[in-house]
Amino acid sequence: MQIDLDRRGNGSPPVYRQIADHIRGEIEAGRLDAGDRLPPIRALARDLRVNRDTVALAYDELVAEGRLEASVGRGTFVSAAPVAASAPHAAALATRVEALLEFERARPRYGAGAGSIPLHALVPDPALYPVAAFRRSVNRVLGRGGAQLLLYGDRQGHAGLRELLARRFRAHGIEVGPDEITLCHGASQGIALALRLFTEPGDAVAVEEPTYGNVLGALRALGLEAAPVAMTEAGPELGALERALGRPEVKLLYTIPTFHNPMGITTSLAHRRELLAAAARAGKPVIEDAYEMDLRFAGRELPPLAALDTNGLVVHLYSFSKSLFPGARVGAITARGRAVEGLQALRAASDLGGSPLVQAALADFVGSGAYDRHLGRLRRRLRSRAEALLDSLAREMPEGVRFTTPEGGYQVWVEFPGGIDTRDLFADALRAGVLVAPGYVFQHDGRASNGLRLAVAQTDEAAIRRGVALLAHVARERLATGRPVSASAGVQL
Amino acid sequence: MQIDLDRRGNGSPPVYRQIADHIRGEIEAGRLDAGDRLPPIRALARDLRVNRDTVALAYDELVAEGRLEASVGRGTFVSAAPVAASAPHAAALATRVEALLEFERARPRYGAGAGSIPLHALVPDPALYPVAAFRRSVNRVLGRGGAQLLLYGDRQGHAGLRELLARRFRAHGIEVGPDEITLCHGASQGIALALRLFTEPGDAVAVEEPTYGNVLGALRALGLEAAPVAMTEAGPELGALERALGRPEVKLLYTIPTFHNPMGITTSLAHRRELLAAAARAGKPVIEDAYEMDLRFAGRELPPLAALDTNGLVVHLYSFSKSLFPGARVGAITARGRAVEGLQALRAASDLGGSPLVQAALADFVGSGAYDRHLGRLRRRLRSRAEALLDSLAREMPEGVRFTTPEGGYQVWVEFPGGIDTRDLFADALRAGVLVAPGYVFQHDGRASNGLRLAVAQTDEAAIRRGVALLAHVARERLATGRPVSASAGVQL
Repeated sequence: MQIDLDRRGNGSPPVYRQIADHIRGEIEAGRLDAGDRLPPIRALARDLRVNRDTVALAYDELVAEGRLEASVGRGTFVSAAPVAASAPHAAALATRVEALLEFERARPRYGAGAGSIPLHALVPDPALYPVAAFRRSVNRVLGRGGAQLLLYGDRQGHAGLRELLARRFRAHGIEVGPDEITLCHGASQGIALALRLFTEPGDAVAVEEPTYGNVLGALRALGLEAAPVAMTEAGPELGALERALGRPEVKLLYTIPTFHNPMGITTSLAHRRELLAAAARAGKPVIEDAYEMDLRFAGRELPPLAALDTNGLVVHLYSFSKSLFPGARVGAITARGRAVEGLQALRAASDLGGSPLVQAALADFVGSGAYDRHLGRLRRRLRSRAEALLDSLAREMPEGVRFTTPEGGYQVWVEFPGGIDTRDLFADALRAGVLVAPGYVFQHDGRASNGLRLAVAQTDEAAIRRGVALLAHVARERLATGRPVSASAGVQL
Repeated sequence: MQIDLDRRGNGSPPVYRQIADHIRGEIEAGRLDAGDRLPPIRALARDLRVNRDTVALAYDELVAEGRLEASVGRGTFVSAAPVAASAPHAAALATRVEALLEFERARPRYGAGAGSIPLHALVPDPALYPVAAFRRSVNRVLGRGGAQLLLYGDRQGHAGLRELLARRFRAHGIEVGPDEITLCHGASQGIALALRLFTEPGDAVAVEEPTYGNVLGALRALGLEAAPVAMTEAGPELGALERALGRPEVKLLYTIPTFHNPMGITTSLAHRRELLAAAARAGKPVIEDAYEMDLRFAGRELPPLAALDTNGLVVHLYSFSKSLFPGARVGAITARGRAVEGLQALRAASDLGGSPLVQAALADFVGSGAYDRHLGRLRRRLRSRAEALLDSLAREMPEGVRFTTPEGGYQVWVEFPGGIDTRDLFADALRAGVLVAPGYVFQHDGRASNGLRLAVAQTDEAAIRRGVALLAHVARERLATGRPVSASAGVQL
């Protein structure tokens, strides 16, 4: 079988998809019949000069569509299943699913790095979860509330938890009552709901660049475009922000002003005011992702955007995922006026609301003081780990490498000189035994970046120092030689 | 203030909105200025000959938009807040939120019926929840799994629970492995995800009429139209179904073949086969909502659509909400081929997945046999309650009233003769102390219906008999007199 492959990779479909498309076309044109045997993976890979995994991926896709059947030991055959009737549906579905998966397929594969030093993940260390205290909370509320906690919840979420959160937010200067808070399934659901409330498919959303990768995924799943605004050390670049918000198709701004993901930057007070003024001039809402607001370990607190906002344009997102643990799947959306009702109606139409049991257990945990005790311990731990990271970056990294100095949260952004693409550095580091988050995953179009994110979520001080030393070593090598990534890297990007 | 109101209600906006629109226009035109005092609610209601609540609702909306300010004891004033900048945003948002809320605002208000006999709700009785056994499961899995259950879950959901569900589904004839199952946040999230996977805003979805009200809400929130297919005693009318699926804008069918909501009907085997053949001819997927599949208490089980489907077109939804309790917020989507990946990608982009703790506790509960013991008890209870309901309907209802005879689940559908609109009967029954679900909430366009749903979820046999006697009494009165609902009914529809 000969297939004309476009290998330039510049806007052309991935090679495995070109192969699958070709075979699908042959079946539809009747040139391949039910029962026909396809070339063995090894042979086709050799003929096409591609990796065997690439052919296997193409075959897998066609098996999933019901067009091919794999028979262990005998080979792969054109399916005799009655796909004719559902073929238009299957083709449309395949296109939709490919679009949805494109984003995830572009992510780095960390699989080969088991046993490595994990400086890549922004998932808090399970060793630090207050499991026993949370379990006591679960048992206390089940003992008290019983079956009532196993009913559907009300549309805003557990009133006690909203009351506690309102009190906490007021301590940060946000004038808010419990009725302006809606509990959601992690801040990620809050982001998706706010995007759906303010946009329609085809609209655009202003985002900082780099920004939180999962938001870029959420935009794609909703059929939205990203309008990137470059980051400076003080926050998003204001001229670019003003221009982006001025475009009619841009319907809102998504921003992470405190302990920015991936950069660790805190948007300055002056910048916060300018950002809000620009949003007010454009009359467009702002999603403030405050996912790490409780994780400050240095410097002075700045008011959240929601505390500075006088126009009711800010939708503020809180999360327990980084400050406690992600498995609760509880976040909170604070909004103003009509947006509150809109978000609640969208949530009800999405999943009929959250688990009253988990929300009540969290309320007990927060109300008992256990959450603040946990936050105190966590902040001390984070400060110590961040110091180890910043100290070893300063000691180990070659000249010309720059990095941010966060005042809270888990992550530091590191930028390399000499035209380094951190996609390559990621692969080098993976081989050397340290996992990092390469910058391209935070770019709206996945373009090359000379930055990468290091996170201290899952590593102690000693491992952090070892990891930075290894990373500095591969960076120095790459700066010296410009050596390209070998094909055996075990990395599929 | 004089306002020209369109009271015909036929496609014109609700009266409160006409009032709000008028005042908003006066402010924007500069005829009302910042600081101007609006007429007291009582006075304006009198002038316009509307209910005071209607004026209050209009004022509330404008307060929420920031255009009016209410000052206790002083009255309502045009706001001096700087709304100018965000006004376009606020207006667009108000339109969007109104569209989202329209569906919910049309729902019956049961508030005035506290203390009544609840024959309206399809929410299982908390008195029957196995709280102690579930609590033991939570503690067992937290003791074993600890912090690992508080991390993010994997994208398909807890593997053990999927394995157990696959085994249960295979016992119903569905050839499925755990990898074809994706856990979701209640079947309601599964419905929303499947709708998003197969449609785009502006598309249409074939639904039975009457059908599950929340699905009609989900369609609206996603910008989808309903293409209604009338129900017969054997399932959806096949000619109408074929015509609906033949329309290019109709992208899929949503059906409830077992213990239909609201009708309690089970689609016959012949009808199931015809339905699947029609879907295959059209090449369009079918969402099978099997939310009560484990609640059969009479008759012989029929194979689920997913067991009869040879084209991979069926997406099957399972739920613990009716068979155990809704507060777990766990359901399962069974799909084929590419749809599995698509649903998982959409779920990840919606909320990053469910709570591993709750899923693991459910797996323990199901795996220990506690779920099947609970189901056995629940089915016996449901059979006894259904017998009480059917028996008292046969005894009490006036001639010409017809009702379905379900073989499982919670609900019975009752149809009244003589041109009765059950919206009126609902109001009569509310006054008489019994709550029912009027048929219009299950119609895609909310049109009048002579049917209503009675559910035995939250009432014992004695209360069921009392409730039916009361309902029969008001039905008899209405049949005799045709008396309209008085304005003091406390019901806002």
